[in-house]
Amino acid sequence: MERSACLLFQCNDKVGIIAELVSFFKAHQVSISRFEEYTDQQYFFARLEWHGDHPWGSVAEFDDVFKTITGQFEGARHRTYFFDQPQRLGLFASKEPHTLIEAINRTEAGDYPNTEICFLISNSPAMEKYAVRHGIPFHFIKTFKDPARHEEQQLEMIRQYQPDVIGLARYMKILSADFIATAKCPIVNIHHSFLPSFIGAKPYELAYQRGVKLIGATSHYVIPALDQGPIIEQGVIRVQPGDSVEHMKRIGREVEKQVFAQALGKVLQHKTITYDNKTIVFN
Amino acid sequence: MERSACLLFQCNDKVGIIAELVSFFKAHQVSISRFEEYTDQQYFFARLEWHGDHPWGSVAEFDDVFKTITGQFEGARHRTYFFDQPQRLGLFASKEPHTLIEAINRTEAGDYPNTEICFLISNSPAMEKYAVRHGIPFHFIKTFKDPARHEEQQLEMIRQYQPDVIGLARYMKILSADFIATAKCPIVNIHHSFLPSFIGAKPYELAYQRGVKLIGATSHYVIPALDQGPIIEQGVIRVQPGDSVEHMKRIGREVEKQVFAQALGKVLQHKTITYDNKTIVFN
Amino acid sequence: MERSACLLFQCNDKVGIIAELVSFFKAHQVSISRFEEYTDQQYFFARLEWHGDHPWGSVAEFDDVFKTITGQFEGARHRTYFFDQPQRLGLFASKEPHTLIEAINRTEAGDYPNTEICFLISNSPAMEKYAVRHGIPFHFIKTFKDPARHEEQQLEMIRQYQPDVIGLARYMKILSADFIATAKCPIVNIHHSFLPSFIGAKPYELAYQRGVKLIGATSHYVIPALDQGPIIEQGVIRVQPGDSVEHMKRIGREVEKQVFAQALGKVLQHKTITYDNKTIVFN
Amino acid sequence: MERSACLLFQCNDKVGIIAELVSFFKAHQVSISRFEEYTDQQYFFARLEWHGDHPWGSVAEFDDVFKTITGQFEGARHRTYFFDQPQRLGLFASKEPHTLIEAINRTEAGDYPNTEICFLISNSPAMEKYAVRHGIPFHFIKTFKDPARHEEQQLEMIRQYQPDVIGLARYMKILSADFIATAKCPIVNIHHSFLPSFIGAKPYELAYQRGVKLIGATSHYVIPALDQGPIIEQGVIRVQPGDSVEHMKRIGREVEKQVFAQALGKVLQHKTITYDNKTIVFN
Repeated sequence: MERSACLLFQCNDKVGIIAELVSFFKAHQVSISRFEEYTDQQYFFARLEWHGDHPWGSVAEFDDVFKTITGQFEGARHRTYFFDQPQRLGLFASKEPHTLIEAINRTEAGDYPNTEICFLISNSPAMEKYAVRHGIPFHFIKTFKDPARHEEQQLEMIRQYQPDVIGLARYMKILSADFIATAKCPIVNIHHSFLPSFIGAKPYELAYQRGVKLIGATSHYVIPALDQGPIIEQGVIRVQPGDSVEHMKRIGREVEKQVFAQALGKVLQHKTITYDNKTIVFN
Repeated sequence: MERSACLLFQCNDKVGIIAELVSFFKAHQVSISRFEEYTDQQYFFARLEWHGDHPWGSVAEFDDVFKTITGQFEGARHRTYFFDQPQRLGLFASKEPHTLIEAINRTEAGDYPNTEICFLISNSPAMEKYAVRHGIPFHFIKTFKDPARHEEQQLEMIRQYQPDVIGLARYMKILSADFIATAKCPIVNIHHSFLPSFIGAKPYELAYQRGVKLIGATSHYVIPALDQGPIIEQGVIRVQPGDSVEHMKRIGREVEKQVFAQALGKVLQHKTITYDNKTIVFN
Repeated sequence: MERSACLLFQCNDKVGIIAELVSFFKAHQVSISRFEEYTDQQYFFARLEWHGDHPWGSVAEFDDVFKTITGQFEGARHRTYFFDQPQRLGLFASKEPHTLIEAINRTEAGDYPNTEICFLISNSPAMEKYAVRHGIPFHFIKTFKDPARHEEQQLEMIRQYQPDVIGLARYMKILSADFIATAKCPIVNIHHSFLPSFIGAKPYELAYQRGVKLIGATSHYVIPALDQGPIIEQGVIRVQPGDSVEHMKRIGREVEKQVFAQALGKVLQHKTITYDNKTIVFN
Repeated sequence: MERSACLLFQCNDKVGIIAELVSFFKAHQVSISRFEEYTDQQYFFARLEWHGDHPWGSVAEFDDVFKTITGQFEGARHRTYFFDQPQRLGLFASKEPHTLIEAINRTEAGDYPNTEICFLISNSPAMEKYAVRHGIPFHFIKTFKDPARHEEQQLEMIRQYQPDVIGLARYMKILSADFIATAKCPIVNIHHSFLPSFIGAKPYELAYQRGVKLIGATSHYVIPALDQGPIIEQGVIRVQPGDSVEHMKRIGREVEKQVFAQALGKVLQHKTITYDNKTIVFN
């Protein structure tokens, strides 16, 4: 069966891991076309790609065979992805459409492998037009003081559409720990500052007050602690003398678009491994 | 008398300032060759340069005449610099020589107008060779638990050499509020992080732990609050997956060199105005 | 009458220009809120903005009064723009939609002052959907070997819609000198290389062959000589080892989008002056 | 015997190379600690590092054993480096000292593994002081119309000092094809433009005339065709409106320093493979 696939692997570092990984594929007569590895102190991380014939009918089948490797290395974990599996991206947005538009257009341009956007959820009806233009199911879900009220509706959508990844395209409501645990799929946020500077709702205002010379944007996985999740990508842009908060927001939008789209791309190409609240991002 | 000079001017913003400034010089038959202005909310900032004949024998004489302008505008302050005035730069360093070497070489290359380095003070005798190579007076001043003990010796040097600007080239001791007040001249620090992230002594370690994708450096004026002074310049560099703290320090050195040398240049070219703990930096 | 406006002014450099410009507005009791000037060898360039009351009912009326200034300075030329004048942007595209989408979305987001897109002309029917989504008139114009045949139809559109600016959003046909002369309005192109490297139709292929470590994009005014017009904006992105031409094209698209949108913004905000085949771009 | 080492390997791409390379080391009970590979169309490139015991007493001994691998792959070539081998860097300079100073200081800071500067050759006696400060042998060699006259003296120095790498730190004389062939070691140049734009002696002047918005620097291996060798590293910096050629030269110096020092580092860390007039640069 002709299938392209990739493997993400991590374990505690020790001598001989590279040889074991490579030998496994050789033993199954599968030729590795791309091998990338990193170590960080006591940890080892690798990503392998192969193209062409392979003997495994499904990811589950591969995982079953690959147990012989993971069993050998302490702390071993892996994820496998066959590139012909369709992927579903769910998007959340609030009032600002720029990162949403970018994610939609990159998906439409085919930048993300085998990906379709399965829904757009927003607490603002004004976002509907961006969904309608591209034939994306839109769901207006009003937010309440008690997040359980709107999160239940959101989870109902997630149950129905089964997204593989959720992207928060400048969605400005805090997700509860319960929501994050129940949603199960990775949730990628774009924060409008160079984290860890300027956590919270008003980063451009804080950047203005501190008089920084570069402003930035950060895309990270969402965890219960606000703006504290593993960072996937960051970018910056230069501020000019006298730039107002409004101007910073305008130029910051361009960085947010780039950083969010880049981070989504890495996640959807299965090029990230998280550990110790950090993210290894492969090329 | 043929003299090049510049004026830095700030006041509360209102209509008509540009016209008044320009008219002043026209009335004195001085032709402005460079005019740059910014506003930030309620404030107005300008820098003017002129070359060629002017009627003022000294900065004091200019200031006396210019009072007619500053008197008209609320919150008005100004500084004047004649480019033929020699400038004295005093340097402090500890153990890491890279920003020190950069500052020395830029001075020697003539990047800073009419500037000589008047001393190097260090709490490490290993820094002496960098001073000796360039004929710069070197003073080893041991640090004590009670900063008053070494700061008194440092202030003695400052009294003797009268620096116009002090540059802290990775000087790792905290200067007391008393020292800053007594030294009087502007003090420019290089901090090895992208402030306000990672204040304090171990920024690369903190950046590593947080898993940021860009590390940076910040040059700022020193005020009593640690790493909180008005920012002059910032720069960043990309971290690669698996980069150790040691590697971050190595690539960070290059950003520190650039940012510190750039900030010193702006200060020595009289292209900065501070206000509200921020810095306007002119081109 | 309350109107915001800007003036772009250039002339041969000599002493006293700044004073004359500022005095003119003072004499008409108009307060300049933004003044930015540059010199380049023998030339002087300035851009002034004012907000609030002014005595001029129209640009023509202003120009008539301002003749007293232009008459005084050799080589003087100026352009005036009242910010309440609506502006019409015409777009040309071929097969690649990314810069087109970016220009449309930035216009819709209000990034360009008082601007609407008056038409999209394409030699590919596949571009129609991008126009339809945003309610922009679309015109498919087939290209012929003899450019006069399709350019006549394009000029007919230009006569009908009267664009103030034309943007070539990866339009891949060469415009004749006749077309450029007849169209009259400024034409802004995005070229997919860091000019002057890699002129012509296959820049990514040439960049790949030369083994450059950064690829770029250049937005410039169109003149009859191919890819030789005054440069407005340029950007670059880093190439990784082993990047294919296809990969370069994908990452290059992001630079093209940024550079084209940025250049269009500068033109539509009236922040450019061309001279000697160069462009002064104001902040 | 405990030795750190690296292997650079290239061959025509085919399936199974990674497995063969890894198996070779496994068979010799050597554990690979770093593996990095790229493909470019029909070519395969890899760099491997290992630390700790290995059975080879010398590079020659390793090469002899490794023949079993190179014999299996068409177009196979390799280079091996044991990190305890001292490396000798020879420098050439003319009148501008900035890249020279940077290379000297980076070497002194220990940025390059096990490297000492074995000579500085210059056609300007003013460069002597930069050598003397750091105890580097200095040789003034006058240039003549007939390059054979000074190149013979330069080759005599090369024969005497046996440099592993030569760095041209803004050395402004063209090296003859004969010299390049006779010197044998790799020669790394820094060109003061973003190649392939602005080949030759006056790149900043040409950049100024063309009105580019970014200027750059390029470090490349020297081949007989002027400024046409395989590119190792490039960098750019933004030009401001009205920047003179002189100003471009000043800001360009900083890019030249960074790019040259970075390229030398990659060469001295054995992280480059050249092919088809291109360079693969490993992380």
